[in-house]
Amino acid sequence: MTRVAIIGAAGYAGAELTRLVLGHPGLDLVMVTSASDAGKPVSGLYPALANCDLTYVEPNVRDIVDAAEIAFLAVPHTAALAIAPSLVEGGLRVIDASADFRLRDAAVYASWYGTPHTAPDLLDHAVYGLPELWRDSIPGARVVACPGCYPTATLLAAAPAVEAGIVVSDRVIVDAKSGVSGAGRSAVPGTHYVAVNESVSAYKVASHRHTPEIAQGLSDLGLAHPRVAFTPHLVPMSRGLLSTVYLEVAPGTDAGEVHALYASRYAGEPFITVHESGRMPATSEVRGSNRAHIGVAVDEHSGTLIVTCAIDNLVKGTSGQALQCANILLGIPETTGLDLPVPVI
Amino acid sequence: MTRVAIIGAAGYAGAELTRLVLGHPGLDLVMVTSASDAGKPVSGLYPALANCDLTYVEPNVRDIVDAAEIAFLAVPHTAALAIAPSLVEGGLRVIDASADFRLRDAAVYASWYGTPHTAPDLLDHAVYGLPELWRDSIPGARVVACPGCYPTATLLAAAPAVEAGIVVSDRVIVDAKSGVSGAGRSAVPGTHYVAVNESVSAYKVASHRHTPEIAQGLSDLGLAHPRVAFTPHLVPMSRGLLSTVYLEVAPGTDAGEVHALYASRYAGEPFITVHESGRMPATSEVRGSNRAHIGVAVDEHSGTLIVTCAIDNLVKGTSGQALQCANILLGIPETTGLDLPVPVI
Amino acid sequence: MTRVAIIGAAGYAGAELTRLVLGHPGLDLVMVTSASDAGKPVSGLYPALANCDLTYVEPNVRDIVDAAEIAFLAVPHTAALAIAPSLVEGGLRVIDASADFRLRDAAVYASWYGTPHTAPDLLDHAVYGLPELWRDSIPGARVVACPGCYPTATLLAAAPAVEAGIVVSDRVIVDAKSGVSGAGRSAVPGTHYVAVNESVSAYKVASHRHTPEIAQGLSDLGLAHPRVAFTPHLVPMSRGLLSTVYLEVAPGTDAGEVHALYASRYAGEPFITVHESGRMPATSEVRGSNRAHIGVAVDEHSGTLIVTCAIDNLVKGTSGQALQCANILLGIPETTGLDLPVPVI
Amino acid sequence: MTRVAIIGAAGYAGAELTRLVLGHPGLDLVMVTSASDAGKPVSGLYPALANCDLTYVEPNVRDIVDAAEIAFLAVPHTAALAIAPSLVEGGLRVIDASADFRLRDAAVYASWYGTPHTAPDLLDHAVYGLPELWRDSIPGARVVACPGCYPTATLLAAAPAVEAGIVVSDRVIVDAKSGVSGAGRSAVPGTHYVAVNESVSAYKVASHRHTPEIAQGLSDLGLAHPRVAFTPHLVPMSRGLLSTVYLEVAPGTDAGEVHALYASRYAGEPFITVHESGRMPATSEVRGSNRAHIGVAVDEHSGTLIVTCAIDNLVKGTSGQALQCANILLGIPETTGLDLPVPVI
Repeated sequence: MTRVAIIGAAGYAGAELTRLVLGHPGLDLVMVTSASDAGKPVSGLYPALANCDLTYVEPNVRDIVDAAEIAFLAVPHTAALAIAPSLVEGGLRVIDASADFRLRDAAVYASWYGTPHTAPDLLDHAVYGLPELWRDSIPGARVVACPGCYPTATLLAAAPAVEAGIVVSDRVIVDAKSGVSGAGRSAVPGTHYVAVNESVSAYKVASHRHTPEIAQGLSDLGLAHPRVAFTPHLVPMSRGLLSTVYLEVAPGTDAGEVHALYASRYAGEPFITVHESGRMPATSEVRGSNRAHIGVAVDEHSGTLIVTCAIDNLVKGTSGQALQCANILLGIPETTGLDLPVPVI
Repeated sequence: MTRVAIIGAAGYAGAELTRLVLGHPGLDLVMVTSASDAGKPVSGLYPALANCDLTYVEPNVRDIVDAAEIAFLAVPHTAALAIAPSLVEGGLRVIDASADFRLRDAAVYASWYGTPHTAPDLLDHAVYGLPELWRDSIPGARVVACPGCYPTATLLAAAPAVEAGIVVSDRVIVDAKSGVSGAGRSAVPGTHYVAVNESVSAYKVASHRHTPEIAQGLSDLGLAHPRVAFTPHLVPMSRGLLSTVYLEVAPGTDAGEVHALYASRYAGEPFITVHESGRMPATSEVRGSNRAHIGVAVDEHSGTLIVTCAIDNLVKGTSGQALQCANILLGIPETTGLDLPVPVI
Repeated sequence: MTRVAIIGAAGYAGAELTRLVLGHPGLDLVMVTSASDAGKPVSGLYPALANCDLTYVEPNVRDIVDAAEIAFLAVPHTAALAIAPSLVEGGLRVIDASADFRLRDAAVYASWYGTPHTAPDLLDHAVYGLPELWRDSIPGARVVACPGCYPTATLLAAAPAVEAGIVVSDRVIVDAKSGVSGAGRSAVPGTHYVAVNESVSAYKVASHRHTPEIAQGLSDLGLAHPRVAFTPHLVPMSRGLLSTVYLEVAPGTDAGEVHALYASRYAGEPFITVHESGRMPATSEVRGSNRAHIGVAVDEHSGTLIVTCAIDNLVKGTSGQALQCANILLGIPETTGLDLPVPVI
Repeated sequence: MTRVAIIGAAGYAGAELTRLVLGHPGLDLVMVTSASDAGKPVSGLYPALANCDLTYVEPNVRDIVDAAEIAFLAVPHTAALAIAPSLVEGGLRVIDASADFRLRDAAVYASWYGTPHTAPDLLDHAVYGLPELWRDSIPGARVVACPGCYPTATLLAAAPAVEAGIVVSDRVIVDAKSGVSGAGRSAVPGTHYVAVNESVSAYKVASHRHTPEIAQGLSDLGLAHPRVAFTPHLVPMSRGLLSTVYLEVAPGTDAGEVHALYASRYAGEPFITVHESGRMPATSEVRGSNRAHIGVAVDEHSGTLIVTCAIDNLVKGTSGQALQCANILLGIPETTGLDLPVPVI
């Protein structure tokens, strides 16, 4: 059993990690930390974890290093910067769900996050933890930077087409829709039930911090100088994320061939389903699971490949993917602890 | 008082028309027809209209012609084709909320709706009832074809930029999100609460019938040969529609100038609000009202103008717009019966 | 035009009052105050009121007295105690939506609200503003204490049976369900979308402050020494309130006769509908309106009269009822400004 | 591995059983039948089960008997009557989620279900499968009749008090709230998203078929001649059920003692949590799990013990409980396949 600590365990992502690690046969959850909820029992904050007898403790580097072999960071950006170097020095593997080690270029980080990157050396040793696209880079990493929820769905949607070279324009439109848990556990006016219910709206248009991460990923996949217009929307649901990606393709591009390309690219991937041609996924299909469901269509008139990808923002979009990366680090089957039967509706 | 009949009054759009006509000081609702619910009291089907003492009757051309001066058609496509000519011959003004008289080219209609257009002559006398864009064409019309809900929001979002000539590509991406009432009152698997709740998905990708209507409107606004990629999505809410429109603009396009352009174009329009620069509308803002709220942003990196427009699909998207057109036909203030104080949340 | 000020106008109830007063033909809204949002435009906080050009101002007794003839108080309890006496002295009629003047016995107030009642003299001049039950007491009052949302629905549900003397036990069970807006506009953990969505739970069991108000009302209706078990529940919806009231009746009580009793009692009441026997109301029927819809059933086996009453907690439960009381004070038709056509779904 | 067939597998309960059996280490799902969806793949109807490669087949007694050792029936009432005797004769254990074998008195069944009970002999060999209350009766049974969702939550809520003899009246008020999945997968007007959303209402007041089942259970627990007033309500959520039970207790009944009674009664039960005194459960706590969470309060003024019990109607209320009973039949730990980590929100 590998000893695990979850840092920032009281937020939604941390809590989902808690439930997944508790159900994992090879991991032993030895510590859950929370600066804001230290002293409270996990089962008090999350009654769904009624059988968990852990209590949140203050995060303390010394204690974490003594207790654990792997640390999951489910903290806000800059907080991972503050703690990850010490944990790595202490010999831990760090799986970071924050944004701090996702962008390889520290200057891009500084520009989008409005604060300097204080651990650029460690950045060189971090890998981007999206197994279906860059699986080989993960084993051996000291720091795994787990992708943001929007980049996960968007890059999975775009990858087969970009890799195959059928995208003819570097201008990519990404229109994404997320449930409210993506905004975190804080009670603010924007997360009030009344503000969210019966409403849909765009937010952070042309300014969301996942934009450079999507661009970096598209570039890595082979699209030169991507220009990404990314518009996230808030929809009235607790969980779930759908990314609708618009890629320009050549006139005459055949829908069937594109579908075959996608089916082939993801054949054998345990967490990905490419729906039959023309069928589009709903986020409810993947609620609670680490799966990504993808639908492909070609609009011939406008020369547009339209791909939608549905994930659970808190699982494949965060905590499940983190655990998937941990499985890879540990050299055990990638699906361990993640092949759960999830409610069908 | 002008005598009004609503044909197809038992559906959602017809019922919203019923409530609006009942509250209109210059209209007298003399008849509500429904082929499926004839004999039932309106208040039984829609208890919110508890004070309405009308009963649905079978639609009968002779009776309608005898009783009414204006007929609102809230029937499915092809049903309007079947009845509108007789009503016009009988001397009525027809305000049609169906798709049957929106496309000027009967061949385009036949192609998208899979059935020939059986009243092409009347098509020549029909006008497209989107007052904020083509107000002058409405007075004197025998048939007003009210726009679809998606085209209404999309064309209002695109018009100022297209008219001003700042759109540099004919390829337009439209990503729209609608509440479930847009799918109508029929109980089918896709409208089951469990199928809709906690889920978002795209549907009819690259094949929705509002596509040619959007293209026709963009062309009328001055965009030559528009190529429209239109993706509607279903979101878990009863009412509301948001259209997110992506228009390519020249490098260096100034966000402030674009915002000023929009504010100027819609100044004085009683039902349109252009939000301050960068602020995006939520559908809840317009729930129950005939208003359209618009937000404008420019993504400089990708050269994209992103405009979102929020409407209530059953009011500005259907019944309210129909009533607005009726006011124009009658030569009375356009806001009559439509300036209702709607619930603030 | 009677000049009106709304004190505490930035909360949900105050905002709904704002929209209703703006739509009222006999009232002139001269001032909206908010301690927390002074300086902000109404249309900024509530974009649904896009056409309103008022700005919130700090509450100041002198200014209010100078400006208005009627003051609506939509403030938390104790805040009404602090300001109402000065407003009455200044010559204003006060319509108070808070709890401060509902309970006639200052000691009961002190016991349930945990603070002494600081204006017991004014209490003697306050009336309880539930027109359908105690209409005659309202004209001439200096202070109208509008009932709480739960007591409104509960007392309307119980009144005909209690008045008729068919209730055989003083033990009354009230199980009520409310939408989240009843908890107010504050963003707290309990109003977070994720906490509310897909969940129902009881709260403040055996301790909710509306309990003594329900008991006082039942006593006034003729039930000696009522013993009320009141359990409010939170359900995932923005608006709406349903009270299910269980009254013990004698064996052999006839369902048809009880229904006739209810229909007769409320005949002619413009805002109340008693559904046909056995049909129960849904809160969606009354969304946005000042209506109360009532359903009646008798469970013969257990000797229980079961009555459900649906209201919109923010209209008949608060702001609409306040306006109805204002109409009575002004001697104008009770439905003025309240007979709005509300969305049918 | 025990071979299992699920009869009626395409409904919500059957689909949840499918996912639970697929995740169970000791069961082998050999057949899923559906009269309406035969020929369709499970993963087509329920994309959440994307990894399941089973296809629905027509139900055929011979085939079921040949293939399986245990049959779960997730069919409507009367359909279980039609098939269960043959399956038992064929040597199978039958776990029936329908209502057909719950009521011991065939005449009561006939009276409430409006049809004669056609297998009264088998009724004598059926046991009521609510393990926490009547665990000892289950091993060895040929037919286990799983309780309805409402009786499950209600009886778990009432049992400790009734067993302890502190309930002083035979008149019991049960006010329950259910999500929409309880109404099944059929698309009917009452399950349309628009009909359910933003609304709460009572249904089948004084006439719901779970009433005699609740009464039978209360009687078995020791309450002589229970008179049950049961009012189910529909609330806008997909899953979840809360039963609020009002039991009359003697004056002076101590809340702390009652709480201790409940905590003691359910100590060691793996699926039940009794919350600390005064804290009430929310249905979201148990979403997707086989757990029941219980809260206890005493209203001293009215002499009422108020207990709320939250379950997932499709798990502890149906499919999970069926599997729990199967575990007992098989003599394996009761939590096998049911101790899943469920999403925390």
